[in-house]
Amino acid sequence: MSVRTPDPHPGWLNEDDLYEARRRLPMVYVEAIPVRVDSLGYVSEVGSLYVADDDGRFYRTFVSGRVLYRETIRAALMRHLEKDLGPLALPQLPPAISPFTVAEYFPSPSETGLTDDRQHAVSLCYLVPVTGECQPRQDALELTWFTPDEALSPEIQNEFVGGRELLVRQALAHAGWGR
Amino acid sequence: MSVRTPDPHPGWLNEDDLYEARRRLPMVYVEAIPVRVDSLGYVSEVGSLYVADDDGRFYRTFVSGRVLYRETIRAALMRHLEKDLGPLALPQLPPAISPFTVAEYFPSPSETGLTDDRQHAVSLCYLVPVTGECQPRQDALELTWFTPDEALSPEIQNEFVGGRELLVRQALAHAGWGR
Amino acid sequence: MSVRTPDPHPGWLNEDDLYEARRRLPMVYVEAIPVRVDSLGYVSEVGSLYVADDDGRFYRTFVSGRVLYRETIRAALMRHLEKDLGPLALPQLPPAISPFTVAEYFPSPSETGLTDDRQHAVSLCYLVPVTGECQPRQDALELTWFTPDEALSPEIQNEFVGGRELLVRQALAHAGWGR
Amino acid sequence: MSVRTPDPHPGWLNEDDLYEARRRLPMVYVEAIPVRVDSLGYVSEVGSLYVADDDGRFYRTFVSGRVLYRETIRAALMRHLEKDLGPLALPQLPPAISPFTVAEYFPSPSETGLTDDRQHAVSLCYLVPVTGECQPRQDALELTWFTPDEALSPEIQNEFVGGRELLVRQALAHAGWGR
Repeated sequence: MSVRTPDPHPGWLNEDDLYEARRRLPMVYVEAIPVRVDSLGYVSEVGSLYVADDDGRFYRTFVSGRVLYRETIRAALMRHLEKDLGPLALPQLPPAISPFTVAEYFPSPSETGLTDDRQHAVSLCYLVPVTGECQPRQDALELTWFTPDEALSPEIQNEFVGGRELLVRQALAHAGWGR
Repeated sequence: MSVRTPDPHPGWLNEDDLYEARRRLPMVYVEAIPVRVDSLGYVSEVGSLYVADDDGRFYRTFVSGRVLYRETIRAALMRHLEKDLGPLALPQLPPAISPFTVAEYFPSPSETGLTDDRQHAVSLCYLVPVTGECQPRQDALELTWFTPDEALSPEIQNEFVGGRELLVRQALAHAGWGR
Repeated sequence: MSVRTPDPHPGWLNEDDLYEARRRLPMVYVEAIPVRVDSLGYVSEVGSLYVADDDGRFYRTFVSGRVLYRETIRAALMRHLEKDLGPLALPQLPPAISPFTVAEYFPSPSETGLTDDRQHAVSLCYLVPVTGECQPRQDALELTWFTPDEALSPEIQNEFVGGRELLVRQALAHAGWGR
Repeated sequence: MSVRTPDPHPGWLNEDDLYEARRRLPMVYVEAIPVRVDSLGYVSEVGSLYVADDDGRFYRTFVSGRVLYRETIRAALMRHLEKDLGPLALPQLPPAISPFTVAEYFPSPSETGLTDDRQHAVSLCYLVPVTGECQPRQDALELTWFTPDEALSPEIQNEFVGGRELLVRQALAHAGWGR
């Protein structure tokens, strides 16, 4: 049993402990690929966040983040969608909780093709139609909407970080695009 | 080759031919289970149409109907949703076309537990969140909304026609209810 | 009502009637993409039938065929798998009947990118692991197994008929490949 | 940054740290519901492990366990299947990694109906056909096979621990049973 002083925020990890846990345990993540759909439900656009890392390199990613202790998957999805797309995006979470895929991110070299050098993350991935106005989070340069064809083009595919170009292809195939 | 007079509506069947085809070929159907979802996507209510048959018996069913020649599944779904729930229901068709189940209706005795005495119908089933105002179709007495628990109660389950109480259970299980 | 002589095979269509029905009604099809999987379930190979049409052109396709009147989807799948891959292929039908996608084939021009000039076919598509020995059907030149990368290469993609190269991409994305 | 002495087993947690992490972070789990299927893929039997807890109470559960750091979901599934069902069970992992549901276990009171008093576990759930001979793990009294109807009966449903009777219903609904 632990003999540390009682934690003022039980159920949460401080930065050091989180740093260590990330090197010992897979983290539970959720990931949302925002889409615009037409009146029949066909995907017309795929959204991606364009962000810069600490070294000033630019890359594309999706809405994603950790599931906290005692937080449901749906609450985590909504929290990250609101943080990344703003409070007026009106995301429509699907009635079924089964993700379209589970992305397994590993520190490289990764056998899945998906990498995250901070941690091993098991990420439940959802296609999420958004119908409202999106305001990308502060540290993002912009939220860019692409047609499916654009999102699958080599130039855009190359801009995704951590192998997320695979997720684009899987998401669009799931939506019946497949091209 | 056929020597019948040219059909004034090529691509469509007249009533006699449709009657015959229904005894020789499986028909392609779509079926929508209307649901109300809360802001996190949890299903809060399930909708069913309460209708009377020619003998004056009452029963419950869902939005369903044939897919026409050269009609896409999405167009057929939307057409039947509009016909059965009115033009203001604002149904949200899912971005993926894969149905949550495929219901196989046979003239009884049916090995699947689903029956339709007119035909063998292969019905692609979707959970469809509706966010607007519903006006049930003219021949329906009403569109009733049930909580998941009510929809799974023996009294309501008994009111469904053709074995559709199975679909209620499958739809709610798919949405994570399962109780 | 029809006044034709009673059909000696009620529940079945003769060639003429089937020809006509195919121009008036969507047909229910099943389609199986045979795969070899390793001990962990990863897809290692995708099978395709290499066949010649009446004009002597060669193309690739999958196991597919009609669902007959009063036949279940699973029985139709198994019948076509046995016909196309032989009796020793040992296909493993999935426990869930929900297809990974629904392919909508139309006479061209088709808005889905999938074409079949004989008919409008609504085809329920399944990934089917086969563990036994395959003997391709008589009219097929061979059953070819490709690695996922080979199946996605432009040369092989070009050999598929009716737009089935889309199905290859959707099937592999569904299996987590996505490259 | 941590100043602890280097861990002799980097990437793994000792018992104390695991105990603490379980009270701070959601754990990634996999859960397999073993099934017997007939030649057409219909589920004929559902397997459950009958075990005793430290207080000598008996209950039913499924194959489940943690995903380790740097372990893939498929490797974790296979490891737990082998541990719980023995090396000759011949489980058939599905070609798609998307689970049929995600079970969210919380220390009670749990808003999902699924409970685990040790931790918050996010469990990816799979239906896994097994074709071989099963030897239940040492601490299990037996592996019991039930028909779907038996598994859904009130007596057997009451024997499941942590709310897993919900998973039985969801799994069978997913397989088209739904009764």
